[in-house]
Amino acid sequence: MNRVRKIHMNRNTLVEEFIEVLGKAPKVALFSHVSPDGDCVGSMLAIGLALEKMGKEVSFYNPSRIPSNLEFLPGSSRICQQLPDPQPETLMFVDCTDLGRVNLSMSDISKVSTVLNLDHHISNQNFGHLNWVDSQASAVGELALTLINLLGVEIDGDIATNLYTAIVTDSGCFQYSNTTAQTHRLAADLLDKGIDLSDIHHKIFDQKPLSQIKLLQSALNGLEIHAKGQLALMTLSLEDFHKSGAEQESSEGLVNHARGIAGVEVAVLLKEVGPLEIRGGLRSNRWLNVSEIAAQFGGGGHSRAAGCTLRVPIEEAKKRIIAMVEEALRIGRDY
Amino acid sequence: MNRVRKIHMNRNTLVEEFIEVLGKAPKVALFSHVSPDGDCVGSMLAIGLALEKMGKEVSFYNPSRIPSNLEFLPGSSRICQQLPDPQPETLMFVDCTDLGRVNLSMSDISKVSTVLNLDHHISNQNFGHLNWVDSQASAVGELALTLINLLGVEIDGDIATNLYTAIVTDSGCFQYSNTTAQTHRLAADLLDKGIDLSDIHHKIFDQKPLSQIKLLQSALNGLEIHAKGQLALMTLSLEDFHKSGAEQESSEGLVNHARGIAGVEVAVLLKEVGPLEIRGGLRSNRWLNVSEIAAQFGGGGHSRAAGCTLRVPIEEAKKRIIAMVEEALRIGRDY
Repeated sequence: MNRVRKIHMNRNTLVEEFIEVLGKAPKVALFSHVSPDGDCVGSMLAIGLALEKMGKEVSFYNPSRIPSNLEFLPGSSRICQQLPDPQPETLMFVDCTDLGRVNLSMSDISKVSTVLNLDHHISNQNFGHLNWVDSQASAVGELALTLINLLGVEIDGDIATNLYTAIVTDSGCFQYSNTTAQTHRLAADLLDKGIDLSDIHHKIFDQKPLSQIKLLQSALNGLEIHAKGQLALMTLSLEDFHKSGAEQESSEGLVNHARGIAGVEVAVLLKEVGPLEIRGGLRSNRWLNVSEIAAQFGGGGHSRAAGCTLRVPIEEAKKRIIAMVEEALRIGRDY
Repeated sequence: MNRVRKIHMNRNTLVEEFIEVLGKAPKVALFSHVSPDGDCVGSMLAIGLALEKMGKEVSFYNPSRIPSNLEFLPGSSRICQQLPDPQPETLMFVDCTDLGRVNLSMSDISKVSTVLNLDHHISNQNFGHLNWVDSQASAVGELALTLINLLGVEIDGDIATNLYTAIVTDSGCFQYSNTTAQTHRLAADLLDKGIDLSDIHHKIFDQKPLSQIKLLQSALNGLEIHAKGQLALMTLSLEDFHKSGAEQESSEGLVNHARGIAGVEVAVLLKEVGPLEIRGGLRSNRWLNVSEIAAQFGGGGHSRAAGCTLRVPIEEAKKRIIAMVEEALRIGRDY
């Protein structure tokens, strides 16, 4: 095959070439990104299990440990933190915007390998020889399901469990705005394979470590409401993490408890990650562009979700954030 | 039409008769149950709006106030707490196992009326002249969508918003085990109508009153772990409700925070609803039949969700529940 990047290739031709490369490959190495989530792990495993059903030799790589709530995924114990050596001729990257997401650079890739890049991020860097990037897909799992169907592999319960997990996690249980009619139709096809819905949901979502619940408790105990109910702010000190026994990553999603309060436009979680290092996570519900607020502190993000770091004591960080948000709310709307 | 209850009628004939009765009716009164939820309100409104598009005069009845998170539903302001007077010839009950769910009895129903009963509860009492009861449906919304399609009414954005709300709430965002491939396919059809997914989810799920978050805070502050991590118990005193400003109903769902802790088999929420009146909500994750525990205290329910009332001080109730759960866990499994 032609080894130049085929970015602007017709979609059907591109998909056909993906199928052709995979069809011919005796060995395939699959890669997924650091801080693995349900979509990259589930999609990678589903594709790998499908390729194995075609008689291929498959290896699975992820630079991080797989989170405990995803360990139930069929094939998950096969995922290695060591790069395949030697590298097979066909490498496939799943859900990775660029090689940096796998802690790799171009020099790590064998010159004779064909690089397949399957992703749904609009910011994908098209680093592969073939780049199947579809930002309309709620999850790479949608593309993986299409791919497996086109490879002609019968989807069994194990593959379906992986694909369903990929889709349900990246679409936020079909709640995020990236969810489309197609997302639901694909989920329906997977349910037809007889997967155990309650078991999957229980394993993915319902098993939080006690430390995470204690961290939520600390966050709620520090909840403050400002700007006539439009700003809800929570803080987590190093001491809170220490007392609860929770890791820094456990605070992910906590800000949504503040965002979900009726009347709140902006929710903020300030967490102390080190002495004089306060990380702020900002969310808005309807109209305020929080990336502009984050930018004032040298951070950035999207209009409804942004972040920044303040190198001041936590009480001072709180004062500055409150003042800035109140000002933005005042400018945006008279209140 | 024949006024005897047609319980064992062939399903197709039954649905045809539903369509025939509704097709001929100039006026239809719709009824939904007390403590209204997204399914009964959304399904009732969708059917009513569809019937109005057919040129019929429609009234909407619910004995309770519509919860504020459902007030955005198109047509919701039309719902009355007063019974239609005079009653039209055609009455349709939506999502009601029996007339008691609408705070009515047979004597409240005009003798000349035809009663249509559309429901998905297996325990439905078949109280109508025509009873379309399908316990395979995750929500009455699924049946309402089928009905509207069969009536030949084009589903517009307002109807789709109501139906989607019905389905997403009763299937627990497609997470409950009642969710089927058909549930997803119907949701896909509704998304095709161009409904605003993030707006609907935000309105239904993301706008909790501050008092409810404060109640969660109290519940977490009282969280106790017993039986080597298999039992998680939370208590809410009258004082907790008073301090948070929350209603008794606001505690609904709080027990899931305890149920979701890794390793927990049984979660209990004890709430003081009056002096010496402690209501216990019990949930289990995998194997313990909590309805048997509830039965020991004169309560009941299902194997994974049950409830009971103890007429003792809250500390005493806690002791008794812990002892009983520990005993059941010990008998069920050596630990």
